[in-house]
Amino acid sequence: MIRVGIVGATGYTGSELIRLLSGHPQVQVTALVSRSEAGKPIASVLAHLHGLELPTLSEYDPDALAKQCAVVFLAGETGFAMEHAPALLQRGMRLIDLSADFRLKDPAVFAEWYGKTHSAPDLLHEAVYGLPELTPAEAYGNARLIANPGCYPTAAGIALAPLVKTGLADTESLIIDAKSGVSGAGRSRVTVDYLFTELDENFKAYSVERHRHTPEIEQTLSVASGHTVRVRFTPHLVPMTRGILCTAYARLRETVSPERLHALYTEFYQGQPFVVVRPLGNYPATREVYGSNRCDIGLTVDLRTNTAVLISAIDNLVKGAAGQAIQNMNLLLGLPSTTGLPLAGIAP
Amino acid sequence: MIRVGIVGATGYTGSELIRLLSGHPQVQVTALVSRSEAGKPIASVLAHLHGLELPTLSEYDPDALAKQCAVVFLAGETGFAMEHAPALLQRGMRLIDLSADFRLKDPAVFAEWYGKTHSAPDLLHEAVYGLPELTPAEAYGNARLIANPGCYPTAAGIALAPLVKTGLADTESLIIDAKSGVSGAGRSRVTVDYLFTELDENFKAYSVERHRHTPEIEQTLSVASGHTVRVRFTPHLVPMTRGILCTAYARLRETVSPERLHALYTEFYQGQPFVVVRPLGNYPATREVYGSNRCDIGLTVDLRTNTAVLISAIDNLVKGAAGQAIQNMNLLLGLPSTTGLPLAGIAP
Amino acid sequence: MIRVGIVGATGYTGSELIRLLSGHPQVQVTALVSRSEAGKPIASVLAHLHGLELPTLSEYDPDALAKQCAVVFLAGETGFAMEHAPALLQRGMRLIDLSADFRLKDPAVFAEWYGKTHSAPDLLHEAVYGLPELTPAEAYGNARLIANPGCYPTAAGIALAPLVKTGLADTESLIIDAKSGVSGAGRSRVTVDYLFTELDENFKAYSVERHRHTPEIEQTLSVASGHTVRVRFTPHLVPMTRGILCTAYARLRETVSPERLHALYTEFYQGQPFVVVRPLGNYPATREVYGSNRCDIGLTVDLRTNTAVLISAIDNLVKGAAGQAIQNMNLLLGLPSTTGLPLAGIAP
Amino acid sequence: MIRVGIVGATGYTGSELIRLLSGHPQVQVTALVSRSEAGKPIASVLAHLHGLELPTLSEYDPDALAKQCAVVFLAGETGFAMEHAPALLQRGMRLIDLSADFRLKDPAVFAEWYGKTHSAPDLLHEAVYGLPELTPAEAYGNARLIANPGCYPTAAGIALAPLVKTGLADTESLIIDAKSGVSGAGRSRVTVDYLFTELDENFKAYSVERHRHTPEIEQTLSVASGHTVRVRFTPHLVPMTRGILCTAYARLRETVSPERLHALYTEFYQGQPFVVVRPLGNYPATREVYGSNRCDIGLTVDLRTNTAVLISAIDNLVKGAAGQAIQNMNLLLGLPSTTGLPLAGIAP
Repeated sequence: MIRVGIVGATGYTGSELIRLLSGHPQVQVTALVSRSEAGKPIASVLAHLHGLELPTLSEYDPDALAKQCAVVFLAGETGFAMEHAPALLQRGMRLIDLSADFRLKDPAVFAEWYGKTHSAPDLLHEAVYGLPELTPAEAYGNARLIANPGCYPTAAGIALAPLVKTGLADTESLIIDAKSGVSGAGRSRVTVDYLFTELDENFKAYSVERHRHTPEIEQTLSVASGHTVRVRFTPHLVPMTRGILCTAYARLRETVSPERLHALYTEFYQGQPFVVVRPLGNYPATREVYGSNRCDIGLTVDLRTNTAVLISAIDNLVKGAAGQAIQNMNLLLGLPSTTGLPLAGIAP
Repeated sequence: MIRVGIVGATGYTGSELIRLLSGHPQVQVTALVSRSEAGKPIASVLAHLHGLELPTLSEYDPDALAKQCAVVFLAGETGFAMEHAPALLQRGMRLIDLSADFRLKDPAVFAEWYGKTHSAPDLLHEAVYGLPELTPAEAYGNARLIANPGCYPTAAGIALAPLVKTGLADTESLIIDAKSGVSGAGRSRVTVDYLFTELDENFKAYSVERHRHTPEIEQTLSVASGHTVRVRFTPHLVPMTRGILCTAYARLRETVSPERLHALYTEFYQGQPFVVVRPLGNYPATREVYGSNRCDIGLTVDLRTNTAVLISAIDNLVKGAAGQAIQNMNLLLGLPSTTGLPLAGIAP
Repeated sequence: MIRVGIVGATGYTGSELIRLLSGHPQVQVTALVSRSEAGKPIASVLAHLHGLELPTLSEYDPDALAKQCAVVFLAGETGFAMEHAPALLQRGMRLIDLSADFRLKDPAVFAEWYGKTHSAPDLLHEAVYGLPELTPAEAYGNARLIANPGCYPTAAGIALAPLVKTGLADTESLIIDAKSGVSGAGRSRVTVDYLFTELDENFKAYSVERHRHTPEIEQTLSVASGHTVRVRFTPHLVPMTRGILCTAYARLRETVSPERLHALYTEFYQGQPFVVVRPLGNYPATREVYGSNRCDIGLTVDLRTNTAVLISAIDNLVKGAAGQAIQNMNLLLGLPSTTGLPLAGIAP
Repeated sequence: MIRVGIVGATGYTGSELIRLLSGHPQVQVTALVSRSEAGKPIASVLAHLHGLELPTLSEYDPDALAKQCAVVFLAGETGFAMEHAPALLQRGMRLIDLSADFRLKDPAVFAEWYGKTHSAPDLLHEAVYGLPELTPAEAYGNARLIANPGCYPTAAGIALAPLVKTGLADTESLIIDAKSGVSGAGRSRVTVDYLFTELDENFKAYSVERHRHTPEIEQTLSVASGHTVRVRFTPHLVPMTRGILCTAYARLRETVSPERLHALYTEFYQGQPFVVVRPLGNYPATREVYGSNRCDIGLTVDLRTNTAVLISAIDNLVKGAAGQAIQNMNLLLGLPSTTGLPLAGIAP
């Protein structure tokens, strides 16, 4: 059994890691770190975890973690990982960071979008950006540090990478209109705006001018296309807890039939257990991947306007966070990527 | 008091007309037609209407209506109005049709998108397409027949018309990503897909290849721009009952600052009581116009991709249907357009 | 026009007062007090109020209020009214207090349940407990201070008062199982527990051991029955924003047919415009009174267990707060009680 | 691997069985029967099941089933099981029936509440009522036919059985006020009343006079108490998909402290992996058992009214249906009862 720890255990991403790892046949959760709730049993904080055998919540202590864990998931706020990763790596643990700290390769881009200087820029090159369906398998070999992608970049990257790779799309025309359940905001965003009464029966755009996932999406698509790509990205908030639906648009440089586009995607994702390319005419709904680590894609070409329409759906807490982190851990450890991860969604 | 009747009184649009007209100071509701529930008191079918003094539901009878009403709202299914409008007009009533029958000016386009031949094509020219913020005031003068716009075309038309009119936008690039509450489907769409359990906590696109509101939006924008416009329109279903948020994108032909775009919209809608152009940096949420006849707009220019982003919010049953129909009635009768119509939204 | 002011204008109760009073034909809103947002236009804080002509938010100033208003609604937190009512009354304003400060007649009971000594006990006797369907009309005559009932006591009082008055029920057996939308918690309860993500798709009881509305319900039922009544009251939180459904149970002392119970309620509430006693076999849903000032009642007798079952539904922000406060204002001013108040609910 | 089949595979209970059984380490799903969708891959009907390896949907054929399966779950409508169980048993399969057909021991009671004569009354005695926390373990030994309890009777039985067994409660005073998510209505109840637009943001009681789970609850509590028990049971519909919260009230015959009641429940359910008796002062919410096979209980005694208050929470599709059926299967097969069943809930 591989001993794993979670730092930031009581957040939504941390607690989803706990839930999923509890069912993983090769893993034992040996450390749960929560600076705000140290000393408590996890079920006294998060009652849905009653019934599981889990370690008591503890303070953050790198030396203790080194004794308890071979792999550590970092599920804290932005800034924590870049501050603490060097000390943890030095103690021999392998890290999977679910924050944004190691996602962007260019520290200048990080500084521009996150408003602070990166404190561990030397690790940026080493960190593997772990979007398994787009990341080369060999990258995982001896990796010590995985940057787990953001939720929107996961959905948008999987939706658009195959197309931009072909060169068929005008990459100056990419529009990504994404819609997310509220859990993407996390458990620590405790403001009036996130009260039930303010979001229930309400739909809106947010961060319209500027959202931090923009450069991460652009990095993924630039790698896929081989040249610099810029996107218009607009996130929206849906009155539901989980799920992202990403509707992406790309003007085509030539006439492409829906059938040809569909064949292209089907081939691209062949053999990927977590990507389902739906038949033509069939589009995914977020509920269909609720609780699942799948990313489902539906697509068409609007021949009237010569526009490709790509629609992807994920569970933002699973494929968009904790599930993908476990998928990365599986790859890191040489396990089948699906080990311990749910394929079926929970419906209704 | 003007005597008005509603045909299709028990649908969502019909019942919203009843609710709103009950508070209208110049109107008396004198006939409620429902072929499926004739003979019953309305509150026995729609319990939220308890407490109002209303006529009993009756069969459809043009001669009876002619005695009871000066104005009739047609809130039935597509096809009813084009079949019955001629007889009603002949009997001297003025009609406001909330179905799609008289919205498209070109009967060939109607046939293409609705899959049937128009049975009253001679009335298409006479019918006034009543989107009051875009329709010339003089058109209402002696009008006998108003075509009340669709919900999406209302939101999209108000969001994009000012921009396309300027010629600043590349009208081959228009993308309309719209999100609607479920009441847009009406009360008679009784299938598994519309069950609570299937839509709760779920978000999806629908009618992706082809939605009947596409040609109506194109007609409005073609009129505004002076040339033929085609749009990519993708509707989505939000797990909430009321509200449409329309996120529209247009590539700009030249660099336009957000401030300039904002000034342009502010001027365009000056004096329109039901359009609120939000300050820069502020975007409407559907809840903020819930129950209101307003259409609120937020906008920006993404200078990185040279794209104008226009976001409009309406209540699909009010400004997108019954409220706008009453606004049209007010204009038809020479009343102030705001008479009897709510400006404030209902929140939380 | 009667000039009215609202203290606590940006809370959920305050903003609902604004919305409803804006449509009241005899009232002009002349002062909106918000200590946290003074100086701002209300629509910049509460965007659903765009389009209304309203005074700018101001600091709390009794002298200014005295010049601006004849009637003041106090919609602040518990404790504000008992501190400030004396000064406001002294300046000649009439007050409608929506907090709990003046609801309980016995200062000892207040101290026991609210955990503090009442600071204006001399006003407790003078204050009129304004539950209009149960309060004698003559009580309003020269009243200066109205205590507006709590939301649960309104729903429970209307449901049970007619029965306990008859003496048919064993008043030691009363069980009130009430379910409320989340807006009852107000806009200032900003904690993790009230985040969207914590309450969506979730149902639970709260304050099970002890809820402050218990003694208020007991006071109402004790007055109705003529002797001291104690109740078991359990509130629950429903994943929706508005609405209370109150399911009340009473063991009967003798066999009572459903028809007899129904006749008794119908007679009791005859002539009350805001109470609808539904036909036997028909029960209210919260949506049917959403946005309405009605309280609808459905009832039966379970002959197998000899238990009366009384089900009442209100909108907690309307009949349970702002609407009832305006109803009280109407009675205070000698206006018809329905003036400016919606009878129809908003559905769907 | 035990080969199992599911009859009624595309309903909500059937599809939840598929999802859960797919993760069961000792089971292989070898037959999926759906009379309406035979011939299709299950994922073409229920898209959340993409990615699983499952047999194609087939017609109902007892002989084929006998070759494919050792255990069959019957998840069809009421009436199917009593018609077909004899033939299936004769062919040697063991049956777990999730319908109501074999729950009530007395065919007269069945006839009274279900309005039809039982067609296999001889099997009623043989059938084991499988509520594992209350059913004696030895009952499972050679059982051929399990009657899987209803959702409400599971929640109410677990909440009240320990108390009624003690004799401390006045069993003429039992009131069960239960609240359920909408999935309890199933996928085939396709009427206006169950549309999203009719239930969203709405809360109501239903089947107030008479609900078929009443005699099943009474049967369970009569067995526990040793004498005939009658209950007042009122179900309500919550605007959410999954979850039941059951709030039960019992007048106590003597003064019982909350601590004593709590100790009694803790002892009663000691060693039961799926029942969590929460600490005093802590009450379960439905979300905390969402997707879990747990039943969590919170309780207190209201000393003012001498009433025990018992609150239980389950996921109606898991512990209230499919999960409990698998728990029963585990017991039938001599496996640990928790095999393949989730303990953690899914939150947020």
